[in-house]
Amino acid sequence: MSLVVQKFGGSSVADADSIKRVAQRISLYSKAGHQVVVVVSAMGDTTDELIDLAEQVTDTPPARELDMLVTAGERISMAVLSMALNDAGVDARAYTGSQAGLITDEVHGKAHILRVTPGRIQEALEEGSVAIVAGFQGVSQSTKDITTLGRGGSDTTAVALAAALEADVCEIYSDVDGVFSADPRVAPAARRVPYISCEEMLDLAANGAKILMVRSVEYARRYAVPLHVRSSYSGRLGTIVSDDPERVIPIDPDVTIRTADVARRDAADPTKELPMDDHSDPGLEAPIISGVAHDRSEGKITVVEVPDIPGRAALLFDVVAGSGANIDMIVQNSSTVDDTVAISLTLPEDDAPAALKAIEQSHEAIGYAEVRYNDQIGKVSIVGAGMRSHPGVSATLFRSLGEAGINIDMISTSEIRISVVTEQSALDDAVRVIHSAFGLDAEQTEAVVYGGTGR
Amino acid sequence: MSLVVQKFGGSSVADADSIKRVAQRISLYSKAGHQVVVVVSAMGDTTDELIDLAEQVTDTPPARELDMLVTAGERISMAVLSMALNDAGVDARAYTGSQAGLITDEVHGKAHILRVTPGRIQEALEEGSVAIVAGFQGVSQSTKDITTLGRGGSDTTAVALAAALEADVCEIYSDVDGVFSADPRVAPAARRVPYISCEEMLDLAANGAKILMVRSVEYARRYAVPLHVRSSYSGRLGTIVSDDPERVIPIDPDVTIRTADVARRDAADPTKELPMDDHSDPGLEAPIISGVAHDRSEGKITVVEVPDIPGRAALLFDVVAGSGANIDMIVQNSSTVDDTVAISLTLPEDDAPAALKAIEQSHEAIGYAEVRYNDQIGKVSIVGAGMRSHPGVSATLFRSLGEAGINIDMISTSEIRISVVTEQSALDDAVRVIHSAFGLDAEQTEAVVYGGTGR
Repeated sequence: MSLVVQKFGGSSVADADSIKRVAQRISLYSKAGHQVVVVVSAMGDTTDELIDLAEQVTDTPPARELDMLVTAGERISMAVLSMALNDAGVDARAYTGSQAGLITDEVHGKAHILRVTPGRIQEALEEGSVAIVAGFQGVSQSTKDITTLGRGGSDTTAVALAAALEADVCEIYSDVDGVFSADPRVAPAARRVPYISCEEMLDLAANGAKILMVRSVEYARRYAVPLHVRSSYSGRLGTIVSDDPERVIPIDPDVTIRTADVARRDAADPTKELPMDDHSDPGLEAPIISGVAHDRSEGKITVVEVPDIPGRAALLFDVVAGSGANIDMIVQNSSTVDDTVAISLTLPEDDAPAALKAIEQSHEAIGYAEVRYNDQIGKVSIVGAGMRSHPGVSATLFRSLGEAGINIDMISTSEIRISVVTEQSALDDAVRVIHSAFGLDAEQTEAVVYGGTGR
Repeated sequence: MSLVVQKFGGSSVADADSIKRVAQRISLYSKAGHQVVVVVSAMGDTTDELIDLAEQVTDTPPARELDMLVTAGERISMAVLSMALNDAGVDARAYTGSQAGLITDEVHGKAHILRVTPGRIQEALEEGSVAIVAGFQGVSQSTKDITTLGRGGSDTTAVALAAALEADVCEIYSDVDGVFSADPRVAPAARRVPYISCEEMLDLAANGAKILMVRSVEYARRYAVPLHVRSSYSGRLGTIVSDDPERVIPIDPDVTIRTADVARRDAADPTKELPMDDHSDPGLEAPIISGVAHDRSEGKITVVEVPDIPGRAALLFDVVAGSGANIDMIVQNSSTVDDTVAISLTLPEDDAPAALKAIEQSHEAIGYAEVRYNDQIGKVSIVGAGMRSHPGVSATLFRSLGEAGINIDMISTSEIRISVVTEQSALDDAVRVIHSAFGLDAEQTEAVVYGGTGR
């Protein structure tokens, strides 16, 4: 018997029929004897509709009241899902975030979880019930007010509960089959990644992959919770996110698998419906890179002719950080003609107005000549633990972009990631040529697996 | 400075514009320096829509989950109302029933309040905030689950909070101007009753008047909370419900009044907008009866030829009570030809199937000949404390019905009430002729007040 946490997003519970379908999936696990905790988002567009309602009465809703309002969405979906389960003969009980013990700080709209005290959930499980928990919400330890966890909050709820309950796996259900080697809308040859480390997943998420939020992956890594990102529309294997290749997790009511075996088995027949009982080993060599992420949401600030005096660059970064902006990449170029430097930095477009204002207010102290801002940039990143042991990765990256005529504006690297900034109009092409250059296209992967050539 | 509890029903907060209008009314009290607690129902048809959603997934929603679902409605309305108040420059905070300290038993769908611990509400008031509280809901003391109080529950929430906070008045806002001497849709000449005792209000509510539920009036009487039933669309005085003629209550941000003076002042100019500063005394003589209530929702069971043996009638009533039915009126007629009696009783139509089944299952034990059921009955009641000191009330009642050709089927009386059962098709006529016979029609009242004749 396993303890499984299953999280269903808003599109999986958009209407009564979807909810009944989700209830059927949950009941398979419950009826097979597993303990199941379900975390659920608000139905379909409910959250947006509630925010619209708020905007009809005020332009400046107090954060506390807005949290109270939007959390009604999960209260509705969890109660209806619980009813559907009971109707299917499964004893189920729904709990708000507060009842489930999600204790947070008091920062409305983006609260952090301080601790999880799931006593009522454990009681429900011990009594043989499925526990349904409202995602995205908690209760403030200090004020006892209802809080929300911000974007991707339901994933975080699921991972936090899985950690507190020491669940065998935390399944994240959505309408796609898992994590892909690139966004399939941009790179049609993108393929599903069967197994990925937390570190790689973090780098993908931080650089534009939208399937999981950074925060839930960080939580999963910290508490060693294996994640399984999969579709609520099929019984197929999705993507396992874990740092422990020896961890054995349930992937179906009747099947468990060692995480390190997932990629191997998946490659043998990537479209196969579970349960899988094929123990053949096709001898897959792990690809050098796991995926290509892209991001259009950043802008670039360039500060020109900053005096090359110790402390001036530091002052600039202090000023920008003080405006609340999250700086991503930084490039500094020395002038060849005078004692000045040009400093470029990228940051979320939403943070740019405050940062620009702060820089202008410090014009005299920094002593620069000019500030420029460009929001037409794009960032493409390759992520893969295999890069550590493979020389020539950056050479392949730059050669493929050069052959496609794509200019590189900025570069940043970590041990398992290279990101480059290009013009936004060239971004989609950049994703495709890089995806091909590293042998990630679906046909090429077949060649690698079965022919041993092609890379 | 007064402490005022104001309850707004679903039609008063049906959409964003209604909510803004209600916020304006509340802000008048808050800005005048009063402490205000607002109890709010779900917006318009929200509760029905949530129940519809439940019915799309199951025919048998568990009561616990249904309570969880429908309470989302008040969570939405209270948060939006709080936002609208903040937008109007009034500091306001919304609280669920649980947060407001509405502690109940664990009977989902019709929980009873065990105690009220409004510590957070008092804190909010002390800090100068308006406290918005979700009506209709509480939290079970034993299970910590969310409960609902059943029909009219928001009124009960308001009265319970007013009692716990020792409020100066509990205002019940709706879309009508107060309690009327009869349903204006049936008796167009019905007039608003300015002042009524709890006992009379209870009898009106128990006999079909729908503006207040019996339970909230009982609560108000027990804890001596003065109620003010009024319209959210006008500033006019509504109906004061109180047993204390000396109680001084706020009826407007700048006006208080002794309850005994209400009727007098109101009669002077019943359409006058508040604030009222007219201290003239038109010398109104209190009408003998306060109002005429009617009820179409009951049915009549008649058990024929019950042996006239001690204990048989008692057994019948035991059997009916055991089926969960609330018996209203009872009439027993002895036969003139044999040693049997016929027993008729009225009860809510919803309770009839179970009661009939129970009676049939006890056929042998009771030993009756036949059971009949009639759902085409109507009940009309006159209520008034003045009846105590006025002889001939029942004579006037029966004469007026007789002259109109309306047959009386059953009669029941208390010290301040007479109820008669008629054919349902004659009910509306019965309401009108009684309303006229007791001088309640609007023109006649004018005559009584100003001319001293006409009764």
